[in-house]
Amino acid sequence: MLSLLDILRRVDSGALAPADAVRLSYDAIDARDGEIQAFVELDRGAAAGRGPLAGVAVAVKDIIDVEGLPTRMGSPIYDGWRPRGDAAAVSLLRRAGATPVGKTETTPFAYLDPVATRNPRNPAHTPGGSSSGSAAAVAAGMVPLALGTQTGGSVIRPASYCGVAGVKPSYRLLPTTGVKGFSWTLDTVGLFGAGVADVALALASMTGRDELQPPDEPAAPRFGLVLQDFAGAPEPAAAAALEEAVRAVERAGASVVPLALPPIFGEAFRLHGTIQDFEARQALAWEYDRHRDALPPLLGGALDAAQTIPAAAYDSARGVARRARGAMRDVFGNVDALLAYAAPGAAPETLRSTGDSRFNRLWTLLGAPCVSVPGLSDGRGLPVGVQVIGPFGADETALRAALFVERAIGRSLRPGTAPS
Amino acid sequence: MLSLLDILRRVDSGALAPADAVRLSYDAIDARDGEIQAFVELDRGAAAGRGPLAGVAVAVKDIIDVEGLPTRMGSPIYDGWRPRGDAAAVSLLRRAGATPVGKTETTPFAYLDPVATRNPRNPAHTPGGSSSGSAAAVAAGMVPLALGTQTGGSVIRPASYCGVAGVKPSYRLLPTTGVKGFSWTLDTVGLFGAGVADVALALASMTGRDELQPPDEPAAPRFGLVLQDFAGAPEPAAAAALEEAVRAVERAGASVVPLALPPIFGEAFRLHGTIQDFEARQALAWEYDRHRDALPPLLGGALDAAQTIPAAAYDSARGVARRARGAMRDVFGNVDALLAYAAPGAAPETLRSTGDSRFNRLWTLLGAPCVSVPGLSDGRGLPVGVQVIGPFGADETALRAALFVERAIGRSLRPGTAPS
Repeated sequence: MLSLLDILRRVDSGALAPADAVRLSYDAIDARDGEIQAFVELDRGAAAGRGPLAGVAVAVKDIIDVEGLPTRMGSPIYDGWRPRGDAAAVSLLRRAGATPVGKTETTPFAYLDPVATRNPRNPAHTPGGSSSGSAAAVAAGMVPLALGTQTGGSVIRPASYCGVAGVKPSYRLLPTTGVKGFSWTLDTVGLFGAGVADVALALASMTGRDELQPPDEPAAPRFGLVLQDFAGAPEPAAAAALEEAVRAVERAGASVVPLALPPIFGEAFRLHGTIQDFEARQALAWEYDRHRDALPPLLGGALDAAQTIPAAAYDSARGVARRARGAMRDVFGNVDALLAYAAPGAAPETLRSTGDSRFNRLWTLLGAPCVSVPGLSDGRGLPVGVQVIGPFGADETALRAALFVERAIGRSLRPGTAPS
Repeated sequence: MLSLLDILRRVDSGALAPADAVRLSYDAIDARDGEIQAFVELDRGAAAGRGPLAGVAVAVKDIIDVEGLPTRMGSPIYDGWRPRGDAAAVSLLRRAGATPVGKTETTPFAYLDPVATRNPRNPAHTPGGSSSGSAAAVAAGMVPLALGTQTGGSVIRPASYCGVAGVKPSYRLLPTTGVKGFSWTLDTVGLFGAGVADVALALASMTGRDELQPPDEPAAPRFGLVLQDFAGAPEPAAAAALEEAVRAVERAGASVVPLALPPIFGEAFRLHGTIQDFEARQALAWEYDRHRDALPPLLGGALDAAQTIPAAAYDSARGVARRARGAMRDVFGNVDALLAYAAPGAAPETLRSTGDSRFNRLWTLLGAPCVSVPGLSDGRGLPVGVQVIGPFGADETALRAALFVERAIGRSLRPGTAPS
């Protein structure tokens, strides 16, 4: 993979010109994207910028506007449509010197209908969704940084499936202006990179929040281990990866205590769909009313069903979510961060599904910062991520803890758990 | 003015065909808009719809997308730009049968730089802003319904200045998808109509929330009178209007008790600008980075200043806002709704300012439903609204109380307080 930190070190030292660093990405895209199909549009003329991310090529999920390029939303309804300017998150990247080089495949309107993108770790497997192209573009070594979005689990799950680092920051840490909306309570812009320190530096540079950049050797956090029983059992690969991560961080000096989540969390988990779908039927009202036949099967069916959700059910679900957010403080009373499954298992062997977001949806609804930490794999060499979750607004805590996990995993790897 | 309820009664009885009802608006626009300059674009071919709002012509603020029409944001930066589809709020109107007939003048990006629109009550006075054209279009009898937005006071203030009813619903009761954003914590879509029952019916029809339609004779509410001392003193006209409204509702059987707001409200009021401007510098990052010279003076200056707001100041302001929202429950412990100034006075005699939102900003930040009730005027015959505020999510309470105020004012009018 292309490491953002490594590229910046080489740019910093003068060994690599920013324009040449960007060219590395075009070359890699030309070499690999025929197989992977991560990109739907390239901007061949994009110049290198100036700033802390100068030389960093960025891939942008195709529900996020980039000046001069079409935004297709993964749907023929938007064929040929061009926004006037950049989404706010893209502007923040440009201000920091990064270079948007192209748009990546998204499931239609970032819902569940799969796309052609393949998992770079094994092309017979899904890369996950909905930020399929962005996760795959990083995993295939085509770009060091990519923008995605998460409404259910669309950053953390593809990061886990593709073996890259993914961060879904706290709700609205990154702006959603210029991003096609699905559910305003849930939609969150996130980042993919080769490792935790890469996405942390990118996030710090975009937001001007220096504290998001973790120290090289973060102190040992106190972890709470949460199994999210309300979301069902994981597959053996995810269970084994989480157990391995626990052993690794304990060996590295961190404490891990099993945490029982309050019952309101399970209630909130079950109501995620009510909130998402009630909002989606409004956010996509024009597409549904004018172009129902052009919607793919899963999204069309979900919007059909959403039309009859009573407003009272939505209001009540929002009340539960509010109470669950209020209960977050107690959950983090004696721990710094949570350790959890990033996905039910390794990437499913299919291109007809993007996998399952059941271990992600609660945290999206709570607005908590989440990081998928790469480094572990199943018996077949497919990556399996581990999820680190922080309190709302404490993205620096989540990123430090995630970097600690990543380092601990790296140090403890043994035969049978080779790096993905 | 064109009354939405009256139009629907005539359509219902068969006395008026929906298409003819819509034509009334085109005729009125042709007759009056040369002087008022409320519209920036007309869709001459818009057909009447079917549904509870069939025959209702709607004017749409020009930061809100309408299929087939340009969205100019009041700025040359968006000259010739066309969205692909309708904003979600426009789709909800179409579903209910209403007909968007055109786009109305907005201050550039809905900030404070004034526009050419005149106040239909006196063309030497501002109609208020930023939803200048939408308020004026209703006040001039050109349309029975108009869409606006409020980030500071851009629905309630122009409604007060123009002598129409304006409702700023609870945060996100109406979707902002397809609306140019300024500050995601604050931006709220609202409605203008001839009277409270008109906007209530429109809101009920758009949201499918029947309870938002108040009964013909709402029960007497318990009012809390709030003077918002932290926002400074009103002009005599606003003070007199609020006193007259208090007398009117008391005569009509309502109770009114003076309420001291908790200190956290004053703190939140003072931090509204920090939240708004920190978010605006992100939401308008592309416009600022690429087109700084094309921004008007007030907005350009505000964005210049916003670039240096520390993230910590924003985070802290959000914390204060959250605590203030939590304190709302106590404020409404013994009252149903609040009575307050809608604006500091009547519309200022100038077209170089859109007036002052200081009596509106706190409630926008708290997400509370607000209604500007028309019916009173200053000594010169200029309208002065009265603001009714409900608890978050209790829009039906706010609308019932506002209708009660409107009826009580109507019944108690005496010489010297002639209807505006």
